[in-house]
Amino acid sequence: MPVIRESLVQKLYQPGIGQELWDFANGIYPICRSISGNGVRETLGHIQSKIDLQVHEVPSGSQAFDWTIAPEWNIRDAWIKDPQGNKIIDFKKHNLHVLNYSGPINGKFQLADLKKHIFTMPDQPDLIPYRTSYYTINWGFCMSHDQLMSLPDGEYEAFIDSDHNPNGSLTYGEYFLQGESDEIFLFSAHCCHPSLANDNCSGMSVNTHLARALSSLQGKTRYSYQFIFAPGTIGSITWLSRNEEKIKRIKNGLILSCVGDPGGPTYKRSQAGDAIVDRAVEKILRDEEANPNIIDFWPYGYDERQYNSPAFRLNVGLLLRSRFGLFPEYHTSGDNMDFIKPDALEKSYKNTLQIIDVLENEYKTVNLAPHGEPNLGKRGLYGAIGGDKKAYDANLPVFWMLNQSDGEHSLLDIAQRAKLPYERIHDAAKVLSENGLLEVKG
Amino acid sequence: MPVIRESLVQKLYQPGIGQELWDFANGIYPICRSISGNGVRETLGHIQSKIDLQVHEVPSGSQAFDWTIAPEWNIRDAWIKDPQGNKIIDFKKHNLHVLNYSGPINGKFQLADLKKHIFTMPDQPDLIPYRTSYYTINWGFCMSHDQLMSLPDGEYEAFIDSDHNPNGSLTYGEYFLQGESDEIFLFSAHCCHPSLANDNCSGMSVNTHLARALSSLQGKTRYSYQFIFAPGTIGSITWLSRNEEKIKRIKNGLILSCVGDPGGPTYKRSQAGDAIVDRAVEKILRDEEANPNIIDFWPYGYDERQYNSPAFRLNVGLLLRSRFGLFPEYHTSGDNMDFIKPDALEKSYKNTLQIIDVLENEYKTVNLAPHGEPNLGKRGLYGAIGGDKKAYDANLPVFWMLNQSDGEHSLLDIAQRAKLPYERIHDAAKVLSENGLLEVKG
Amino acid sequence: MPVIRESLVQKLYQPGIGQELWDFANGIYPICRSISGNGVRETLGHIQSKIDLQVHEVPSGSQAFDWTIAPEWNIRDAWIKDPQGNKIIDFKKHNLHVLNYSGPINGKFQLADLKKHIFTMPDQPDLIPYRTSYYTINWGFCMSHDQLMSLPDGEYEAFIDSDHNPNGSLTYGEYFLQGESDEIFLFSAHCCHPSLANDNCSGMSVNTHLARALSSLQGKTRYSYQFIFAPGTIGSITWLSRNEEKIKRIKNGLILSCVGDPGGPTYKRSQAGDAIVDRAVEKILRDEEANPNIIDFWPYGYDERQYNSPAFRLNVGLLLRSRFGLFPEYHTSGDNMDFIKPDALEKSYKNTLQIIDVLENEYKTVNLAPHGEPNLGKRGLYGAIGGDKKAYDANLPVFWMLNQSDGEHSLLDIAQRAKLPYERIHDAAKVLSENGLLEVKG
Repeated sequence: MPVIRESLVQKLYQPGIGQELWDFANGIYPICRSISGNGVRETLGHIQSKIDLQVHEVPSGSQAFDWTIAPEWNIRDAWIKDPQGNKIIDFKKHNLHVLNYSGPINGKFQLADLKKHIFTMPDQPDLIPYRTSYYTINWGFCMSHDQLMSLPDGEYEAFIDSDHNPNGSLTYGEYFLQGESDEIFLFSAHCCHPSLANDNCSGMSVNTHLARALSSLQGKTRYSYQFIFAPGTIGSITWLSRNEEKIKRIKNGLILSCVGDPGGPTYKRSQAGDAIVDRAVEKILRDEEANPNIIDFWPYGYDERQYNSPAFRLNVGLLLRSRFGLFPEYHTSGDNMDFIKPDALEKSYKNTLQIIDVLENEYKTVNLAPHGEPNLGKRGLYGAIGGDKKAYDANLPVFWMLNQSDGEHSLLDIAQRAKLPYERIHDAAKVLSENGLLEVKG
Repeated sequence: MPVIRESLVQKLYQPGIGQELWDFANGIYPICRSISGNGVRETLGHIQSKIDLQVHEVPSGSQAFDWTIAPEWNIRDAWIKDPQGNKIIDFKKHNLHVLNYSGPINGKFQLADLKKHIFTMPDQPDLIPYRTSYYTINWGFCMSHDQLMSLPDGEYEAFIDSDHNPNGSLTYGEYFLQGESDEIFLFSAHCCHPSLANDNCSGMSVNTHLARALSSLQGKTRYSYQFIFAPGTIGSITWLSRNEEKIKRIKNGLILSCVGDPGGPTYKRSQAGDAIVDRAVEKILRDEEANPNIIDFWPYGYDERQYNSPAFRLNVGLLLRSRFGLFPEYHTSGDNMDFIKPDALEKSYKNTLQIIDVLENEYKTVNLAPHGEPNLGKRGLYGAIGGDKKAYDANLPVFWMLNQSDGEHSLLDIAQRAKLPYERIHDAAKVLSENGLLEVKG
Repeated sequence: MPVIRESLVQKLYQPGIGQELWDFANGIYPICRSISGNGVRETLGHIQSKIDLQVHEVPSGSQAFDWTIAPEWNIRDAWIKDPQGNKIIDFKKHNLHVLNYSGPINGKFQLADLKKHIFTMPDQPDLIPYRTSYYTINWGFCMSHDQLMSLPDGEYEAFIDSDHNPNGSLTYGEYFLQGESDEIFLFSAHCCHPSLANDNCSGMSVNTHLARALSSLQGKTRYSYQFIFAPGTIGSITWLSRNEEKIKRIKNGLILSCVGDPGGPTYKRSQAGDAIVDRAVEKILRDEEANPNIIDFWPYGYDERQYNSPAFRLNVGLLLRSRFGLFPEYHTSGDNMDFIKPDALEKSYKNTLQIIDVLENEYKTVNLAPHGEPNLGKRGLYGAIGGDKKAYDANLPVFWMLNQSDGEHSLLDIAQRAKLPYERIHDAAKVLSENGLLEVKG
């Protein structure tokens, strides 16, 4: 018979962990990642220093449902030299300067011709944009619009030392924790974006540290947990195509992305919209923050698109601080280590523990003294002097648990109806259970 | 196997048709109609010049459910002469001057006695009201309140040359288009009001031209279409009483009334409130107009009352521009040909085609590459440069169709959830279907 | 076959009864009640002067579910004398001065020690608080904070002549009216609070007079009615424990408490939230008052907590004027006979009759002329001159009844959908029924 479990937040949450989360993100920030290549491998190496990550290599040319694994991309150097031979942009200074997945080039171009291969943002003229060309052969550079505007006419030299290796592979990492039940909760963070701190060094850091924390429970969790670090779209589709049996066990999940900036929090619901994960996240964010931004699913964003596609419908939501695409730094060089903050990372990390706590305790409960209210006074569970207008506040979570424990409502149901913090309802359930007044429905 | 159909709006809608709609209304405006009589016959004759209308005569005294067809009313002339013998009101100048269905009179009256038979509107003193007395034997005149107030005392002569013929009949017209399916969509416009342009020369004109347009498809429509032109209440009850088998095939319908004034649009829902027609009209009006007025069913108004009565529940809504009863010209001589406008008639006409388009394409769809997103890039269906904050807008309808095509959702469901114009969802469905990524659920 | 019943309000409501309701409350106001003892007996004696109340004595020590009936409390006198021997507080002047259920004391105390047994309200310094200590052995006094602050140091004499008799009993009263059906509607008012006029002399008065009014119908009501006057919590739990068979017949009920102050009205829903009683009360209060305060159930308040507990779920709501706990006079000496008003008591009384009227007529109806609208004109049920913009208002309730009487909707359903006063829908149903156009669903 299951029992009300102790709070995971109390067990696992270490206040101040935000700095460690930031430091880890900082360590992987400079690496030039893409949908394949050594940047991904190096990043997964950092994660392996924290958890026992299993790394997979899937050969280029392999099929993953409707997709074929593309040739592996690697890049060693890239620059543009002006007519005087000065390097005016240099991949080694900022890897956003190269169109991600760009082919090689080595040639001289008049500025007008070169411009066809240069991407800028006239609206944010001082920032380098992040641009990709995964599925069309192209080469290109990105720079600030101010810099582009300042370039004099003349002949420029463009150099990109990159290659697309048809005998390469796509790389992803995963970590699995078996719990008491075979049902799986999934956490996933994309690992394909280059030097973008919030998107998604933040998500990889929180996902790594959460996996490490849960691993300390050594199989004592109710659910099993699957952690994934994969390139966006093709990476998660590849993981799905290689885990068709396992995914039948996945009931809920969360994508972690952009979880380190000072805005938000934001939650994008799963396609179902009212899955347990949706209700748990919404409750926790509303308990913790004044104005969480809870938004409906729409089929654009991160890998929740894949997990929620018609063949899977895995009930995977997306947890963020600011909403991707709406913060000005999104997909620009402004998304750097100054943009993400230890305390924001820590809030996201704590939220994931709180959400897991809800899931782990999502039981329907039965009041064992259901005929009217039990006599709480004789058990020392009630204030001694009655009639006081303020006396009842402390007893409210207990009264709600008693009234709603008819075997039809779970702790989350009750916390929602009571409009009380989930933590107080959890505590009341624990106290009542310890006093023999409540049990988990068999 | 059904397929996504081409847009009816693209096929059938002729921009500029508003003038033709207005001209047709103008042609029938002067006729004095009532719930029976030659005015109705003459009006149906105009409609027969456009479509192959079938005209029915139902003898007075016939039973139609709880009702008996009243004697046929005809009127030839009517006037009031003042003490000096001047015609102060003349039926030939405006047929609203006679209480509709009035019995005959020929006599002299002191003004005070005559006033008991004169109807005016003190609140709108310069307009002639429209008044009827169908089910109580009476005689009477209508005039502007200003005119009534200006009348000196004295003896007036009142003359109405009308008769109620117990051997007459009630007249209505109908037009039926067989489609691929026996299920019927109904369009109805009342034809009993005399010189009131919006109410309902406008509805008769749109209904006539819509029937003519659909007839050009020669049975290639998914649904069958029933068009009705009948006197209000007794006419539609008569039609229902003589079509008890056919009405089992009617799933949805629309009453067209007051569809030519510059206000609105307005939609009054069917009794069910969430029938397909309700959802389709609401979606189209919200796509097309900034602030459509969508109102719940209530059991007063036009013949939607009859079609939605407990024995039938045919899911018939009411499409209007301004809401009947609320525009000042309603049921007055102000509802004339200056009040209705070609562009308003054209909007109403286009709306009906758009609504039919939704119904004709109301299929649930199945994504044929449902494991994550299909690779749209390799099919040329996706923008080549990724990462751009604005790139995704063009792809949104396609992503929504793919994500929601699990065999449980229709195009209308998806357009509603996506909050995108129906037309864009329809287009996306067509493109995906042509690329082998989507099919209609078998 | 049931028929639409006549209005109970028309039959039973006597305008001006508010003064009688107030006078009865005034008669029981001075009595010192508690959860047991002679004060309760004396109060029930007053009620017996109005209705044939059955009074029960349940011995102390008896078990009632999780509870044991406490020893019976009686008090004869109590006071505090100051160092000069002046009685500074006197139970005989206001029974709130004694901590309710206080044990006896007779001794001399320095002020500092005495203060540990004195309860005041610093926020409302001129009022005596109402405080209880039912389930912890204690003794104490209540007084205004102003008075406490004015007391000089010195030795005070405290005297309480009370006892807790283990061979006593708990007393409650009940009154039952058998109706045509065995299904029971319950009305309950707590009878344990001492001199608090609104809480609950008001509720006992309304409950008593309502029982008397219904008794005049001599079994001609549709439902049976159970009236209860019991001490809060332990009293209702005791009643429940002794009526386990009867409570299976209870479908809905109302607690009457704080029904005499000039604020409100307020309704706290049953746990179910959408029980018939909830919908009936909400409709009536919205018909009668501009801004009724309709609040969701929460597990704190009066005996609705017991009736709605998991083992019973009796769908019992709470009717009040101002919400308990929020009006400043609540649980203070400010809740006196000046605070409650005849017209507020009368409104509450009338509301209960109106609510019963809804319940007694809560039938689904069938339109006997359902094919379109019936011809109301030939039955004299319709205005003779048509076309008038304002004519339809009078007919609306009739049209709604006809349209919605498909055997699926009740009078309350229809009144809610029509957004018309319940009384007008009831009247329309009666008229249609009398004209053979409507019947109650068999």
